[in-house]
Amino acid sequence: MKKLIFTILLFAFLTSFVNGQRKTVHIPDIPGYVTLKCDFHMHTVFSDGDVWPTVRIDEALRDGLDAIAITDHLEYTPKKDFLPVDFNAAWKIGELYAKERNLILVHGTEITRKMPPGHFNALFITDASLIAKDSAWDAFEAAAKQGAFLQWNHPGWKSQQPDGIPRMYDIHKKLIKNGWLHGIEFFNDSEFYPLVFNFCKEYNLALMGNSDVHGTISEIYTEPEYTNRPMTLVFAKERNHDSLKEAMFAGRTLVYFRDKLAGKEEYAKPFFYQCISVGKTYYQDNKNLYFEVTNNSDIPFYLINGVANAPASLTLSANSVTRIVVSKKVTAPLNYDVKNVMTGENEVLRVELRY
Amino acid sequence: MKKLIFTILLFAFLTSFVNGQRKTVHIPDIPGYVTLKCDFHMHTVFSDGDVWPTVRIDEALRDGLDAIAITDHLEYTPKKDFLPVDFNAAWKIGELYAKERNLILVHGTEITRKMPPGHFNALFITDASLIAKDSAWDAFEAAAKQGAFLQWNHPGWKSQQPDGIPRMYDIHKKLIKNGWLHGIEFFNDSEFYPLVFNFCKEYNLALMGNSDVHGTISEIYTEPEYTNRPMTLVFAKERNHDSLKEAMFAGRTLVYFRDKLAGKEEYAKPFFYQCISVGKTYYQDNKNLYFEVTNNSDIPFYLINGVANAPASLTLSANSVTRIVVSKKVTAPLNYDVKNVMTGENEVLRVELRY
Amino acid sequence: MKKLIFTILLFAFLTSFVNGQRKTVHIPDIPGYVTLKCDFHMHTVFSDGDVWPTVRIDEALRDGLDAIAITDHLEYTPKKDFLPVDFNAAWKIGELYAKERNLILVHGTEITRKMPPGHFNALFITDASLIAKDSAWDAFEAAAKQGAFLQWNHPGWKSQQPDGIPRMYDIHKKLIKNGWLHGIEFFNDSEFYPLVFNFCKEYNLALMGNSDVHGTISEIYTEPEYTNRPMTLVFAKERNHDSLKEAMFAGRTLVYFRDKLAGKEEYAKPFFYQCISVGKTYYQDNKNLYFEVTNNSDIPFYLINGVANAPASLTLSANSVTRIVVSKKVTAPLNYDVKNVMTGENEVLRVELRY
Amino acid sequence: MKKLIFTILLFAFLTSFVNGQRKTVHIPDIPGYVTLKCDFHMHTVFSDGDVWPTVRIDEALRDGLDAIAITDHLEYTPKKDFLPVDFNAAWKIGELYAKERNLILVHGTEITRKMPPGHFNALFITDASLIAKDSAWDAFEAAAKQGAFLQWNHPGWKSQQPDGIPRMYDIHKKLIKNGWLHGIEFFNDSEFYPLVFNFCKEYNLALMGNSDVHGTISEIYTEPEYTNRPMTLVFAKERNHDSLKEAMFAGRTLVYFRDKLAGKEEYAKPFFYQCISVGKTYYQDNKNLYFEVTNNSDIPFYLINGVANAPASLTLSANSVTRIVVSKKVTAPLNYDVKNVMTGENEVLRVELRY
Repeated sequence: MKKLIFTILLFAFLTSFVNGQRKTVHIPDIPGYVTLKCDFHMHTVFSDGDVWPTVRIDEALRDGLDAIAITDHLEYTPKKDFLPVDFNAAWKIGELYAKERNLILVHGTEITRKMPPGHFNALFITDASLIAKDSAWDAFEAAAKQGAFLQWNHPGWKSQQPDGIPRMYDIHKKLIKNGWLHGIEFFNDSEFYPLVFNFCKEYNLALMGNSDVHGTISEIYTEPEYTNRPMTLVFAKERNHDSLKEAMFAGRTLVYFRDKLAGKEEYAKPFFYQCISVGKTYYQDNKNLYFEVTNNSDIPFYLINGVANAPASLTLSANSVTRIVVSKKVTAPLNYDVKNVMTGENEVLRVELRY
Repeated sequence: MKKLIFTILLFAFLTSFVNGQRKTVHIPDIPGYVTLKCDFHMHTVFSDGDVWPTVRIDEALRDGLDAIAITDHLEYTPKKDFLPVDFNAAWKIGELYAKERNLILVHGTEITRKMPPGHFNALFITDASLIAKDSAWDAFEAAAKQGAFLQWNHPGWKSQQPDGIPRMYDIHKKLIKNGWLHGIEFFNDSEFYPLVFNFCKEYNLALMGNSDVHGTISEIYTEPEYTNRPMTLVFAKERNHDSLKEAMFAGRTLVYFRDKLAGKEEYAKPFFYQCISVGKTYYQDNKNLYFEVTNNSDIPFYLINGVANAPASLTLSANSVTRIVVSKKVTAPLNYDVKNVMTGENEVLRVELRY
Repeated sequence: MKKLIFTILLFAFLTSFVNGQRKTVHIPDIPGYVTLKCDFHMHTVFSDGDVWPTVRIDEALRDGLDAIAITDHLEYTPKKDFLPVDFNAAWKIGELYAKERNLILVHGTEITRKMPPGHFNALFITDASLIAKDSAWDAFEAAAKQGAFLQWNHPGWKSQQPDGIPRMYDIHKKLIKNGWLHGIEFFNDSEFYPLVFNFCKEYNLALMGNSDVHGTISEIYTEPEYTNRPMTLVFAKERNHDSLKEAMFAGRTLVYFRDKLAGKEEYAKPFFYQCISVGKTYYQDNKNLYFEVTNNSDIPFYLINGVANAPASLTLSANSVTRIVVSKKVTAPLNYDVKNVMTGENEVLRVELRY
Repeated sequence: MKKLIFTILLFAFLTSFVNGQRKTVHIPDIPGYVTLKCDFHMHTVFSDGDVWPTVRIDEALRDGLDAIAITDHLEYTPKKDFLPVDFNAAWKIGELYAKERNLILVHGTEITRKMPPGHFNALFITDASLIAKDSAWDAFEAAAKQGAFLQWNHPGWKSQQPDGIPRMYDIHKKLIKNGWLHGIEFFNDSEFYPLVFNFCKEYNLALMGNSDVHGTISEIYTEPEYTNRPMTLVFAKERNHDSLKEAMFAGRTLVYFRDKLAGKEEYAKPFFYQCISVGKTYYQDNKNLYFEVTNNSDIPFYLINGVANAPASLTLSANSVTRIVVSKKVTAPLNYDVKNVMTGENEVLRVELRY
């Protein structure tokens, strides 16, 4: 009898997510570091994007990110008939707005050239307008002067490499030699470039993963089972701007999109073991042991190539507990390849489930 | 064989949730106890339900439950032309199946009478067939002999109380006097009965919340933002059958459905504080302090009746971080009523956010 | 290049909706007219909105609309530090873009004043800059000179009417007397104002329903079972700009949002009968006749107050076939009130199911 | 002010789909025939399924089907310790239940043997118990005596053909020679077998597509953008049991699952043209013509291999209008291959868009 009233009142609150809230993304820290969820490539009306800079900040909060960079093009400003060119506009508009919302906003811009050298984001800069130069090399030099973290964007983008194969040209090697290049995009939007692994390993660069969003995130990334958009996971000493910067120059990143992770084994391995916990045997019969593996992260893991008498493959779905039945005959360590955690152009992570 | 390889491979990964996995429900433990997520009221083809008993176990795993009871009616077996009556059938079929899957299956049955006395579940029994008696009282006595936890089901069900108001008749008082009644359903399916609070407080009984499912859970509870079905949260010393039983007889329960929690303040309060954490001030300006409140649970909390100069109301959405802006003028404790956590027929939980 | 072929191929097909496509909204025409689905109230970065004008056109296509008006504020331009004021900017940017996509773009603007008179959209104008006047009355006059359809926006908006009650002031009556006012919003965003029915009936004005969107449609209207956003259904002789204009000045509208329709009975009734068809008796037994009612529209209908021996209420869900079982004793016409089709402040549509 | 009441009342009706309603599946008829949406392969608790037979009927209504057959195994009855074997139980339970709900229930059973010959459904039978024979051939003969439509189930099922390749053995050829075999499953659950095309063409058999569901449909087919489960589309003269039977023996079928259609060109071609309509040119500029293609069905069509100067590929999403921009230089017919409409083992449908 009281029931109806209560029901009615509650409906006023039905909205499941309130504007300005940050969603909890279940991505663990690793020992010694906090894991910052970041997207360092996006556009607004100040270049060829569709939205005002504050939208990028609201989207990032909704997606549970810790840090973003808005990186409008220096050389492509198609809205200039209606909107005067101001290369620092997004930064000016967003700086306080982000601060009040506990989002780390990184000052950035995109140097936008034909291949070679292609497109590059300069991050942690102080004034984008000083990087707008006629020659690409002068732009790189200006970015370097500002202490920028320079990221080579989508090196295998088909508009610039029709066969989709990233190639290192002399100018890239010269950038590396000068110490001016620090990371390369492995994920960009819905694409990824396995060869980037080789470049990053050879030259000790950070793998990067970003959305490069021009429209609105919620219309592009619509699969409910995944966190929206590609992201760079940065392993920082603390959750703040300067720690983020230090971690990126140190190359402590993994990249993540949908159900795929990629990065150096030294980060991928502890990350996997923070996501996963193996329980004790809860039941046994004559032939088998039964135990559970809990995946506390939003990322599913697909384990393949199991040892004899154990399950050949296992899907450890996101946020779930998987029952494992192992024959008592198994004596070998329960090793698996994690099919969706890449640690090299042709390598995936090898793990052990210790039960 | 022509079936394209890529199609086959993709299908293997498309399923976001694998059969037999338990979903992680983000519902915290409270100090001293583990929180067991339970549903003690459901039917199968062995009375008037639609599914085989193993389906109830699979559904419970998928919903992340820890314990269930299958409680087919003793007095209503409409399928008997095709299916011989066996009051223990669901138990026999489910016992090992549940054990192998690490789900606690409680042996139960439903005593199904006109009001008064109405419907009752006998839980933790040893043989349902011995409880099938002509008189209701004999059935209660037989249940008591087996040491049953007796639960009064949906006391305000409109088929038995057309005005929806639960009433205690003499037989209920006699059951209580004998120590044979231990809990009353507050939530049943999509209904709830606030008056049950008064009965439970006066007679020291456990609040119960159950689905009473006859069809399939996934077709009934379809709102993606909520955990499926009503449940009883039981605060047990350990996650096993006997600890569950001890906790229930001790009345350590909260009940949960959609975005509503109900129960005694002594459990509701520590439960709330385990769900919520308040962060440090991350920013301030001349007028305001900015801090965040994290809700790590799947349950949203609607805070109302805030103090002067603080937000009048706050929605702490499930699995999210909410930004709070509080005037520097506020000196009083940041108290709120939690609108959706009932602690009595007309009471809600009062909490403080300590920032 | 290592990017596995199957991944690439699948991505091409995964998207269930391709950019630039118009969704089919199942809303029928009525005899003599085509039903145009319209939204005449929305904002862009050129006033206080978040997006570029082309986004409004893309959103309208995705929502299956036939016509929109972008109506940036004349008197509120908070982005002017970065974006020079140009009251016709959205029109200039959108005109060709809409034409190429077969969307009818109506040139509009919003006259934005305190109450009285409140906010007004001038639609079918030729130059918004000429309507930017110091006095509200001069603005109305300038709009009238351009032959504008003038719509009074959200007359019960709580920021301007704290009790939520729309009131007609002298200036509104003067507008009506001059023949300068043509419609009033009944739906605006998530609000609606039943009193508007009385104003529209007394003064022969069109009921209007619009989104007044500032952010992005897909983030605001997230319920999958409904068409996004409030809309005005206009009954036009043809699907083109001039027919739309003629129909609006003639007041041939219904308004629609979620599961609610409102408007004059002369349009609501034929509209209902175009949505619904009643099948022949497909089965009968001694007592009952069985037939089906098909609802071919995206709008559910809730029928109540049925006659004796027939179902008291019926839910004709959107895009579904509902089985009706009627006693052979029923001889009266099968009349119902359609609870969610309002035809007056306190009236709903009365219909008959002819089986 | 009136608003609140209205909102509150409506919430009582929120459920978007009422039990017993049939969903409208947007699948068109073809000239001369009505298209019946059917699933001729499913199980209940009377063999190795999980649900009571009425659940299969309720599921079919919810999925908008016109006809189903429940086909419990004759030779596999694992629940017989609790449930006495009755090969006609599902038919007895479902016959009236289906009739009252306007669903065509086909009496069927599954002959369940090792390969060869494998599994077969006998449909349109009169008594399943008479088909339970020791030898497979006797079972076929008994089915033939009842005038059964015999369907060879999942001929490439890996449990019976580890390489997934369907093979015709002597017994299959003998069945065909006797005129006892009438159809072969192309789709079964999530599998499909392209070679079946060759068998069906050579021997003039019907392509069949069915779910073979054992659990519950809503837990297996969870992709919101597709109609649940595989189905056989049967082109019947009328919507009734006997017309359905006539059409099946005449082989007038297409099979449909997710975004794939398969079948003989004589049915696939008119079906495609009933789904699609091409509009008139609504705009042109110096270079291009603009027109729209409407897809009124729930099935997307992926068009590839376009002619020069026209779009190379087009996705005609389900229930949507797609804008086509064609160069004025195009003079050839606008032909495309429809990638997801198979008309042979290695053939897809070739169509023309006539604008």
